[in-house]
Amino acid sequence: MDLTALTLNCTLKRSPEQSNTEALARVVDNALAEHDVATEMIRVVDHDVKPGVTSDEGDGDEWPAIRERILAADILVIATPTWLGKPSSIAQRVQERMDALLSEQDDVGRPVAYNRVAGVVVTGNEDGAHHVIAEVAQSLIDIGFTVPGQAWTYWNAGPGPGPTYLEADHGREWSATTGRAAAANLVAVAGALKAMPIPPPPT
Amino acid sequence: MDLTALTLNCTLKRSPEQSNTEALARVVDNALAEHDVATEMIRVVDHDVKPGVTSDEGDGDEWPAIRERILAADILVIATPTWLGKPSSIAQRVQERMDALLSEQDDVGRPVAYNRVAGVVVTGNEDGAHHVIAEVAQSLIDIGFTVPGQAWTYWNAGPGPGPTYLEADHGREWSATTGRAAAANLVAVAGALKAMPIPPPPT
Amino acid sequence: MDLTALTLNCTLKRSPEQSNTEALARVVDNALAEHDVATEMIRVVDHDVKPGVTSDEGDGDEWPAIRERILAADILVIATPTWLGKPSSIAQRVQERMDALLSEQDDVGRPVAYNRVAGVVVTGNEDGAHHVIAEVAQSLIDIGFTVPGQAWTYWNAGPGPGPTYLEADHGREWSATTGRAAAANLVAVAGALKAMPIPPPPT
Amino acid sequence: MDLTALTLNCTLKRSPEQSNTEALARVVDNALAEHDVATEMIRVVDHDVKPGVTSDEGDGDEWPAIRERILAADILVIATPTWLGKPSSIAQRVQERMDALLSEQDDVGRPVAYNRVAGVVVTGNEDGAHHVIAEVAQSLIDIGFTVPGQAWTYWNAGPGPGPTYLEADHGREWSATTGRAAAANLVAVAGALKAMPIPPPPT
Repeated sequence: MDLTALTLNCTLKRSPEQSNTEALARVVDNALAEHDVATEMIRVVDHDVKPGVTSDEGDGDEWPAIRERILAADILVIATPTWLGKPSSIAQRVQERMDALLSEQDDVGRPVAYNRVAGVVVTGNEDGAHHVIAEVAQSLIDIGFTVPGQAWTYWNAGPGPGPTYLEADHGREWSATTGRAAAANLVAVAGALKAMPIPPPPT
Repeated sequence: MDLTALTLNCTLKRSPEQSNTEALARVVDNALAEHDVATEMIRVVDHDVKPGVTSDEGDGDEWPAIRERILAADILVIATPTWLGKPSSIAQRVQERMDALLSEQDDVGRPVAYNRVAGVVVTGNEDGAHHVIAEVAQSLIDIGFTVPGQAWTYWNAGPGPGPTYLEADHGREWSATTGRAAAANLVAVAGALKAMPIPPPPT
Repeated sequence: MDLTALTLNCTLKRSPEQSNTEALARVVDNALAEHDVATEMIRVVDHDVKPGVTSDEGDGDEWPAIRERILAADILVIATPTWLGKPSSIAQRVQERMDALLSEQDDVGRPVAYNRVAGVVVTGNEDGAHHVIAEVAQSLIDIGFTVPGQAWTYWNAGPGPGPTYLEADHGREWSATTGRAAAANLVAVAGALKAMPIPPPPT
Repeated sequence: MDLTALTLNCTLKRSPEQSNTEALARVVDNALAEHDVATEMIRVVDHDVKPGVTSDEGDGDEWPAIRERILAADILVIATPTWLGKPSSIAQRVQERMDALLSEQDDVGRPVAYNRVAGVVVTGNEDGAHHVIAEVAQSLIDIGFTVPGQAWTYWNAGPGPGPTYLEADHGREWSATTGRAAAANLVAVAGALKAMPIPPPPT
């Protein structure tokens, strides 16, 4: 089965600055590729994504191109750093812009996000990952994405502020193993929904 | 396809006291039954579920019987009231006790919650439902349940403290329509995962 | 006692578009003024606040001027809309930029946010306010602000998407009364901390 | 100034089982005592605190005695373990029972929790502390407690499941230093509010 995946890296750092979040997201991305998924990664902060909750905020807004990539993918991965225990402002911006998907339907009347799956990757130099996963997963489920069991991974050092993912050794193998399992779960559920999609609502 | 569903009503009120949460959960339960799902509902507070994070805390613990019903169901619905913007202590107790499922595997080495789906029903006399859904969904996903898109419904009156679901008219039709869609999504994804389950991890 | 207050309106809408969040924040702002507090309100989205976690991200960053107004105020109010049950991306941006305050100290060695108080104002066309308050208050407390009891107000219509604060009648008086109480509590605790500040840490 | 403090340890483990949460809470409790605060600690799970949201649920309910100790204290500390990234069911039970304080007033018409301060202590064998602090602080602020800046501490090992506070060395000194600062902040703000209390609402 041909599956495609898009990872939105919601780091605050513009390219070419090194992103810890990208480093951990690459583990999941590589695992998806090993399952023969065609993968793509976008560093959102490199693009001018305007504030707003419509699909096109005009005036140089670069969201429409990202939105198109989301709709081309069977699997969406939101990768975000943790700031003050929360997803980054870039991750929240992405969620806000995806809010418009709530009122869009496919050609048989289903919300456009139905039959797509989503996962979450979180890094941090401090505690917060479970909550970040909760926040992002809730938005994705609201919008219509299915979130498979254990479709996430994270890394941080605790307690208190500490080293970054790329600086540290502590726990990286756990994060990688968990990330590979997340990729397998995303692929399996995406495949099941492609073969047996959620039907259109009764008319 | 033969599917079974279990709803855990996490109200703070013992039977036979009237439960608003049960009333909204019945909307989803009835919709599941219309999809030919065999349904069951347990009011958890009527049972002595001990504090702890093992599958049997001994000494009259009534969790093992509930755990058995969870494992017999393809679809799990957590229904909870909102207190101070959060899931009830009974809902948190249920999540804590399900924590033990994390280390249990089926006979081909998958976490026991894999290939099961879960949804959330929330009532409140005040704001909080989206967060309650986030909290409960995150736990369920952690444990291995798949959460389909829009597999939830809620009701509350806002802002400030107000009437209960059963006392009010405001918004009940929205909650019912949303609940019926949630049931349809739970059934569709449960069916897809039964037909094409997440495979065991590679050995 | 001379007190000053700053409200950061974290709406997604640029001036001169009408902001529901500003409308409710004005209720609190006016109540602060009635307590003889000198007030100021900034619509953050009108300024180019760069992504990052330092006090000056260079290159046209307009955060340094906002940061200066925060440090000039005894009372900080974060006012935000609710999107997907969460604070806006602008509110998260503000929190991220305030993260740098964590490592700044006043001239007697206290974190710069100590002895300042903060409150929260939330509007939404859907449920989420308690969680938004939790998210913002946690960041403010992390950074060193004291959050007085009941130093918040909110408005939304529930359940499901609905009218805006300015369109609706439902519950606006509750939001206003709660907002005036919040202002009184902010003033009282700000005054107490100005008279009897948290002392410097022992050397 | 004579100040009193109450710590509610919300571990799931009954006495005399060893509680990691108690161990870290003792650091804060000892620091409070060094500031001449009269301290008291209750392990809530040792008492039969019934489900409900009134001040006395009858039938052997042991909450009324705990409620009395809360009202006798200037400083309240909620200490809780982290399960699935959340406060324990015992901590949620405590919050639910304190919900009744919302409608109780002192003899000059203020909510009874006004002019009291509160802090949070969190332990976990996995990530979640910032969110636990957010959840508990929001409830306390809702009820009327003032939460001073940085009035919390936490410990966990990250990422993934790991050792307990008492088993590990990693980060314990950070947790202790942070806990002693929390105690100092609680004492300072409690003292300021005792000297200059929030006045009664205008009549």
